[in-house]
Amino acid sequence: MKTDTAPLTPGSTIGMLGGGQLGRMMALAAARLGLDVHVYCPDENSPAFSVAKAYTCAAYEDETSLITFAQSVDVVTYEFENVPSATAELLAQYVPVRPGTKALDVCQDRLTEKTFISSLGIEVAPFADIASDEDLLSAADRIGLPAILKTRRFGYDGKGQTTLRTRDDLTGARDAIGGGPAILEGFVPFEREVSIIAARNPDGQCRIYDIAENRHENHILRETNVPANISPDVIEKANTAVQSLMDELGYIGVIAVELFLVREEDGDRLVVNEIAPRVHNSGHWTEAVCPVDQFEQHIRAVAGWPLGQTERLADVVMTNILGSESNNWQAFAADPDTVLHLYGKAEPRDGRKMGHMTRIIRSGEA
Amino acid sequence: MKTDTAPLTPGSTIGMLGGGQLGRMMALAAARLGLDVHVYCPDENSPAFSVAKAYTCAAYEDETSLITFAQSVDVVTYEFENVPSATAELLAQYVPVRPGTKALDVCQDRLTEKTFISSLGIEVAPFADIASDEDLLSAADRIGLPAILKTRRFGYDGKGQTTLRTRDDLTGARDAIGGGPAILEGFVPFEREVSIIAARNPDGQCRIYDIAENRHENHILRETNVPANISPDVIEKANTAVQSLMDELGYIGVIAVELFLVREEDGDRLVVNEIAPRVHNSGHWTEAVCPVDQFEQHIRAVAGWPLGQTERLADVVMTNILGSESNNWQAFAADPDTVLHLYGKAEPRDGRKMGHMTRIIRSGEA
Repeated sequence: MKTDTAPLTPGSTIGMLGGGQLGRMMALAAARLGLDVHVYCPDENSPAFSVAKAYTCAAYEDETSLITFAQSVDVVTYEFENVPSATAELLAQYVPVRPGTKALDVCQDRLTEKTFISSLGIEVAPFADIASDEDLLSAADRIGLPAILKTRRFGYDGKGQTTLRTRDDLTGARDAIGGGPAILEGFVPFEREVSIIAARNPDGQCRIYDIAENRHENHILRETNVPANISPDVIEKANTAVQSLMDELGYIGVIAVELFLVREEDGDRLVVNEIAPRVHNSGHWTEAVCPVDQFEQHIRAVAGWPLGQTERLADVVMTNILGSESNNWQAFAADPDTVLHLYGKAEPRDGRKMGHMTRIIRSGEA
Repeated sequence: MKTDTAPLTPGSTIGMLGGGQLGRMMALAAARLGLDVHVYCPDENSPAFSVAKAYTCAAYEDETSLITFAQSVDVVTYEFENVPSATAELLAQYVPVRPGTKALDVCQDRLTEKTFISSLGIEVAPFADIASDEDLLSAADRIGLPAILKTRRFGYDGKGQTTLRTRDDLTGARDAIGGGPAILEGFVPFEREVSIIAARNPDGQCRIYDIAENRHENHILRETNVPANISPDVIEKANTAVQSLMDELGYIGVIAVELFLVREEDGDRLVVNEIAPRVHNSGHWTEAVCPVDQFEQHIRAVAGWPLGQTERLADVVMTNILGSESNNWQAFAADPDTVLHLYGKAEPRDGRKMGHMTRIIRSGEA
């Protein structure tokens, strides 16, 4: 196994699990630093294949392909948190896997994640482990309704969850999300959703981008605004929490922390919703106005390089381009205030993330 | 032949002649717009191969490979002006070649170039066609010494030229640069060298970046500063000249115009030195602080897309990383004010362009 903790030299190869738009944008960032990328993904139409020096199209359970892949790269990273544990463990026998397996273990299981976060004194929604109908009944009593029942593992974009508003909704709720291990989360009466994108490298150096305000539609991110309208002391407290999360995880790479802003009479507070151990859609704006964006920052971290600045040269509004909205690409490209990014996906399926555009707000504009 | 003048749709393929760092950076820009790239280059170690969806490693004279290449792409562009005429003409039978063949014809021959520029009423250095020793003697009389004797074709980075300071230097001067067709250029007593990067698309839409001030060492660009210290009326005049050059050439793509700033008692004036029909080293700074950089602008133009803004979010100093200076990459990466770009070249040969770094000057700094 390659155990050297020295920075990867230019010309080294980053192994990338996952070939979607996040992998593609990380590959583009790696290229700017003179690093090669080898993408591993089971989908033969992976957008990241087109910009990588090498790619392997194989299943995450294909041990022979995984070992060949591991032996061809200097470090492995990933674009999605649901990397199978067996895959990560096999690869880690050959090459460093970053962010570490601890981050994967914590982030793949909502119960583990919430337990971990709250153990650091950081507020999360009230939650309970649900393994049976009895668990659900008693947790609903304790936490109150409305509440959200979620699978512990493998949910995203609103899949694998159901909202419980009345006692009647409890019946059949576990079956509705597949009947497996679950978590009940109390409803947080949030005013707005925000997120923090941060990075940590193997030397423990950390960098945090400006907190962003997000608007979702149908559980999918629609728009990100920076700066968010939050008081400096609340931001400082949130950044401290993110810093301690990264330190406790021994984290290496970019992390995204989604939070709820709760507005109360005696002031605002932030409640952590969830962590993504990867670059994140709500950080795409950094590409347009940060000299070192989240994708380069992640590559720097996993390569063991010094991190870059997180400064921001303008205010921004990032909007996702979903499904057939991508047919309007000519209008988007013609907008003089907008930076357009398309992911190279052929089929504009409903709700599919096809690209994003970042509107640059010049000083003095609203 | 594909004669459609409609914009290329996302998913189309840009053919790129040349696989160096300019081709590589254009390929990265194309990927951000959802466009694929097929690189054609005879050098098997071409840095652009690693980031392209497809590549062909073959000679520019290999007609079979060229035809196969042309049939696989929707437009052809290039990273260097010395594309052989036969190559460009063959490709143009199958697919649009942009910027057009007129731009190549003009820019490949210093005599044609200077004649063309001066025909538009734009000042260039005094020049003369040199086909014989007699030509050289009479031209030296007319233009005066010092002067520079250059090959008409295929010189770059100071190669293929010799400076004539005295009458004695005339003897053997033609042989020193190979004895072929040449041009004698009068010496321009310039105070500084500047350059303008501009773009034009098939609809005639034009965009011009802020003029940059350049410092060369040993005929190789060392540093670019933006903004340049030039009065607004001189800049406006220069921009008008660049606009007319592009219009007259029916130009499609990014063009670089290098100029001398001559400082005289009654004011400054700019004299055009040469034109490069491509993205240019003195425009690399745009990548760090312009939401749409010169590489994306070129891709937009050759794809027939609307051009982007050329606004600049900060002042910059771009410095080339030459030869073994690239060994200092860790220090460059650690500099918090600098954006680093490495080209993925393995061998740091003397004077070879290995990367560049752009220092961002924040408001209020010197």
